[in-house]
Amino acid sequence: MSAGNIERESGSTFMPRFDAQGLLTAIAVDSESREILMVAFMDAQALDKTRETGLAHFHSRSRGKLWLKGETSGHFLRVQEIRVDCDQDALVMLCRPEGPACHTGARSCFYRRLEGDALQRID
Amino acid sequence: MSAGNIERESGSTFMPRFDAQGLLTAIAVDSESREILMVAFMDAQALDKTRETGLAHFHSRSRGKLWLKGETSGHFLRVQEIRVDCDQDALVMLCRPEGPACHTGARSCFYRRLEGDALQRID
Repeated sequence: MSAGNIERESGSTFMPRFDAQGLLTAIAVDSESREILMVAFMDAQALDKTRETGLAHFHSRSRGKLWLKGETSGHFLRVQEIRVDCDQDALVMLCRPEGPACHTGARSCFYRRLEGDALQRID
Repeated sequence: MSAGNIERESGSTFMPRFDAQGLLTAIAVDSESREILMVAFMDAQALDKTRETGLAHFHSRSRGKLWLKGETSGHFLRVQEIRVDCDQDALVMLCRPEGPACHTGARSCFYRRLEGDALQRID
């Protein structure tokens, strides 16, 4: 493993690794219940904005632009802590959600489970 | 919203949505502690193999191939439940891990938190 990779995995230097599309994976978790609320992608701009403002920003792949979560709904995610994975291409954000995280009105986007070949609501 | 999208978000039909690279995001969570263990990508083959065998499979983007988590380490992730998000482009797998989930030996890949501009170990 290269020195850069050792530092990336074991070191204290934050060196986020964006993929070929310029994105990394960002998972939002409720800081109290620890429930996974949603998962989306961040580019460098979304990560900078999130760190600057304390509000979760993502990169919308469908709209091709910066997306402040809650910009239309008011359901912001206030980021309390950011965790980074071994190869620094994924983040977990512990958040205080100001309303349902899902655009459908559900608390979490993961409101269904797979039972055999069908989905069943769990909330 | 189209009828297809309504069914995708509200229905009971499992219609996983792979992106332009043929991938969706898969998050592995410890089914007991609810800790996030790792996050990676699945293509259709990895998803099929996961459902068939009950062991988490991913698509390795760096190696460009199917990857059975634990194939070299023996640290398999036994999948107990699969949850699906609103637009069906992300999964949460509740797993029983047979050893550390991270290749570094850490229980979870998310073993550091961002403190200002530096990373600090939390495990």
